[in-house]
Amino acid sequence: MKISDLDTPAVLIDIDVMERNLQNMSNYCAAHGLRLRPHTKTHKIPELARLQLRLGASGITVAKLGEADVMADSGVNDILIVYPLLGEKKLDRLMRLAERVRCAVAIDSLDVAQGISRAALTAGVTVGVRVEFDTGFGRCGLPITEDSVETAKRIRELASLRWEGVLTYPGHIMGTAAEREILLATENNRLSTLKELLDRQGVDCEVVSGGNTPAAYISHRFKNVTEIRPGTYIFNDKNTVCAEAATYRDCAATVLTTVVSASVTGKVMVDAGSKTLSADPLLSGLKLGYGEVVNYPDAMIEDLSEEHGHLNVRKVRNPPKLGERLRIVPNHICTCINLHDRVYGCSGEDVVVQWEVKGRGEVQ
Amino acid sequence: MKISDLDTPAVLIDIDVMERNLQNMSNYCAAHGLRLRPHTKTHKIPELARLQLRLGASGITVAKLGEADVMADSGVNDILIVYPLLGEKKLDRLMRLAERVRCAVAIDSLDVAQGISRAALTAGVTVGVRVEFDTGFGRCGLPITEDSVETAKRIRELASLRWEGVLTYPGHIMGTAAEREILLATENNRLSTLKELLDRQGVDCEVVSGGNTPAAYISHRFKNVTEIRPGTYIFNDKNTVCAEAATYRDCAATVLTTVVSASVTGKVMVDAGSKTLSADPLLSGLKLGYGEVVNYPDAMIEDLSEEHGHLNVRKVRNPPKLGERLRIVPNHICTCINLHDRVYGCSGEDVVVQWEVKGRGEVQ
Repeated sequence: MKISDLDTPAVLIDIDVMERNLQNMSNYCAAHGLRLRPHTKTHKIPELARLQLRLGASGITVAKLGEADVMADSGVNDILIVYPLLGEKKLDRLMRLAERVRCAVAIDSLDVAQGISRAALTAGVTVGVRVEFDTGFGRCGLPITEDSVETAKRIRELASLRWEGVLTYPGHIMGTAAEREILLATENNRLSTLKELLDRQGVDCEVVSGGNTPAAYISHRFKNVTEIRPGTYIFNDKNTVCAEAATYRDCAATVLTTVVSASVTGKVMVDAGSKTLSADPLLSGLKLGYGEVVNYPDAMIEDLSEEHGHLNVRKVRNPPKLGERLRIVPNHICTCINLHDRVYGCSGEDVVVQWEVKGRGEVQ
Repeated sequence: MKISDLDTPAVLIDIDVMERNLQNMSNYCAAHGLRLRPHTKTHKIPELARLQLRLGASGITVAKLGEADVMADSGVNDILIVYPLLGEKKLDRLMRLAERVRCAVAIDSLDVAQGISRAALTAGVTVGVRVEFDTGFGRCGLPITEDSVETAKRIRELASLRWEGVLTYPGHIMGTAAEREILLATENNRLSTLKELLDRQGVDCEVVSGGNTPAAYISHRFKNVTEIRPGTYIFNDKNTVCAEAATYRDCAATVLTTVVSASVTGKVMVDAGSKTLSADPLLSGLKLGYGEVVNYPDAMIEDLSEEHGHLNVRKVRNPPKLGERLRIVPNHICTCINLHDRVYGCSGEDVVVQWEVKGRGEVQ
């Protein structure tokens, strides 16, 4: 089948670009002695998780138990859940998971850790734990203080937990390459302080896990980090390009779309709106627009309805015509793919495989 | 089953509130001799479409052929597709649909109309058509000119099409009630001009279709409008409330969520991020925040990660605690529900039914 045989909208994955992205990250991690544990929330596709493992990943990361189950069902057997798991239902599911694969969780509360410990003891399983510290993103994670390290120490001693180390999410290390460089200095001060506090209390950490896509290729300059968990790098997206962490040639995922209306002066409408691209904003510059139109750099996706992408084409010399097919690089590929039941793997103009987004809809 | 038995995140529908919303709209339309053709893109749930029909709707509206198929499969037999249908694949699907239910399409291009006419002639079916005019939203629709009415006239004469009339989408009639009042005057000038042009060329219109949720209850004051197509009114959402078109007591849909982290000062994290709520912006005021936290009006959902809602609780006297369950009224319920495979119908604290979002994922 050819791409021209597909109806629109449809998510296309350029397999050659994707494999190059994966290989480059594997090579980089190998060269710097970093372990790579990709976050599969970007694609939620078991076949791609297994490809990442074949190309050198040491395990995978997920956000939700439902995603972990889907991945375990497909044979992935080393899964980190970077999400706080509370409540009896989730603990039961975690125990079932721990019975069949090696799994670990990120934790930022003694309460949550105690809950998992009790459940694991009862179930007769072991669950890996990593205590999350907040290095500045301000989302989850304990503050870097002596008290927090004391908490980590208590968590390390809980029954039926396998102590692995610490974890951070450097979501604040963003912006341009130059901006990240400035942020890196502060980050390293924090990572050094954390290490000192951990050493002082004798808390050994086999794993210091960090890493996101924008900063992935400078991960070796993050102090003490042993493992990274980038997700988006498999495809990249407009946010990654604007963060100077990829070029459009490195963007493996595009949305194939059709111009469905050209009745309003200065605009054309495409069949990719917020239910196809997601309304996630551009994170840099003026934060305007909902994606990059391939071959029409002067077209601005200025608004999204649920099923319409509103292209402002006033600055485009030869605007796309009714019926013309366009490709869009979304702002944020993770939330885009999460809207689709399937994506199409392509090589050149050939559609060579269809992948089900099996983890989509696994909100719990 | 009780709501307390559900794991989080989960979308809850208060059935009593929903039915009241439906009944009120039916009563309003009946009182003003308007036909009600609800847009089911809000829920994509066949059972709710059938409920809307039982409570007085004269047919339904959808955006996508896939949604139409799901609705037709469930027994809905009068479907308007308010979306331009281009390309052989879509025309084939439209013909299959027209063979089994009464269907109509909105069109703003002679080319598209001719494509449908040819396909219908070949297939031996009839497809209803309504020509879309742009009254100011600037998305789809022909401009209100003599030339456009000439185009409508030509479309009316095409073979195998059933001429129904004209259609507008007043998506620009938004803001507060007072702001809408000002916009209504301009809208009525345009609707009057359109009527004059149509009359002058002898284009009779059984249907003049308009209407969105924010302006639904002033639809009788839109000149010549015979039918409205609101979608959100079945549930309402924060955008509807901020548009003064509903109160929070009229919001039937909430996202049940749990506080999963409270480690960062001044914030708590809930398990409802952009993959649960959608990142659709608030459309009024400062356009800040990603939903309303029930019972915590001073908590601000200031940011969304994919799986985390970042609540700023600095202004909250007794902030929610780790493990506490909250309910959130999303900014935009249509894109929220579109992220979920199922929703839970509740009456008081009882979960009485589970509905599959069957049309979700039908992007084509």
